[in-house]
Amino acid sequence: MKLKFRQANRQDLPEIVRMLADDFLGATRERDENPLPESYVKAFEEIEADKNNELIIAEKDSEIVGSLQITLTPSISFQGGKRATVESVRVSGKYRGQGIGQELMLWAINRAREENCVAIQLTTNAERKDARRFYENLGFKGSHLGMKLYLK
Amino acid sequence: MKLKFRQANRQDLPEIVRMLADDFLGATRERDENPLPESYVKAFEEIEADKNNELIIAEKDSEIVGSLQITLTPSISFQGGKRATVESVRVSGKYRGQGIGQELMLWAINRAREENCVAIQLTTNAERKDARRFYENLGFKGSHLGMKLYLK
Repeated sequence: MKLKFRQANRQDLPEIVRMLADDFLGATRERDENPLPESYVKAFEEIEADKNNELIIAEKDSEIVGSLQITLTPSISFQGGKRATVESVRVSGKYRGQGIGQELMLWAINRAREENCVAIQLTTNAERKDARRFYENLGFKGSHLGMKLYLK
Repeated sequence: MKLKFRQANRQDLPEIVRMLADDFLGATRERDENPLPESYVKAFEEIEADKNNELIIAEKDSEIVGSLQITLTPSISFQGGKRATVESVRVSGKYRGQGIGQELMLWAINRAREENCVAIQLTTNAERKDARRFYENLGFKGSHLGMKLYLK
C-alpha cells in the first residue's frame, strides 16, 4: 500500500481524536466531540511548537489512515544517546489489518535512525494482546516493565 | 534526610556519568573517562536547551547523592494530557539504601503535578529485580510492557 507521511496540521485534529477514541482503551479516555474540547487544541499547539515532538499522519489517496506521535529525547545515558519514543499509534478502523501500522512503525524507525538515536522505544498496555508480537516482528524486545502513575 | 534538588549544571556531568556507570547495566554502556567523551557534553547541552527536559541533581550537604531526568511530553491522547517521563534514576553508591531514590521520585511526582500532567511514567529493565516493588510503593502500576529496539 502506498502511503504518504506528513506532519499533522490543525485540521487533522478531529480525525486524530476519532482514531484515538475508536479503541477499547481510548473509548473511555477521549472526548470525540464537535467542537473538540479545547484541551486537544492546546496540546496540538504545544506539540507543534516543540521541535522534539512530531505528530505524524499517514495518508492513502489524501485520506487519513493512521497517526502516531514520535518524541526525541536527548539523554545522558548510553554515552549521551538520544532516544526516540513512539506513542499513540493508531490506524483508522476501516483500514486495520492492511499493514498500515507496520508502515507507520517502519517510518518511525527510519526517522529515529535519521536522528542518530541510540534506540526507539515504546510501551504498550498489557491488555493489548496482539501488540507484543506486532512490535517483536519489527525487532523490538519486551525487555522492560512499563509503569504509570495516573495523577488525575 | 534533608536533600536539596536543583537543575544540573555542566560541572555536575562527570559525577552524573559516574553514577550511571556504577550500575550493573550501566557498567558496559557508559564511558566514565577523564576528559568525558564529547557525546555526553553534547547531550547535556541539548537537555539544557530543551524546556521540556530537566536533568535534576539531589544534594546532601553540597554533595551530589543522586540524579534523574524528567521529560515533559505534550500529547493528544487522554484529552490532550501532558505526560511526565522519568529516566536514569541513580543514587550515588555510598548513599544507597537510605531512601534517596524515593525522595528523588517524590520530587519528580510533585514536579509532574505542578505541570498538570495526566500521568508520570517510566520503564524499568526487567533485570532490575527490586525496582518493581520500589515503584509500586510509590503508587506506580506495572500496566505496560516496555519495548526497545536498539539502533546502534
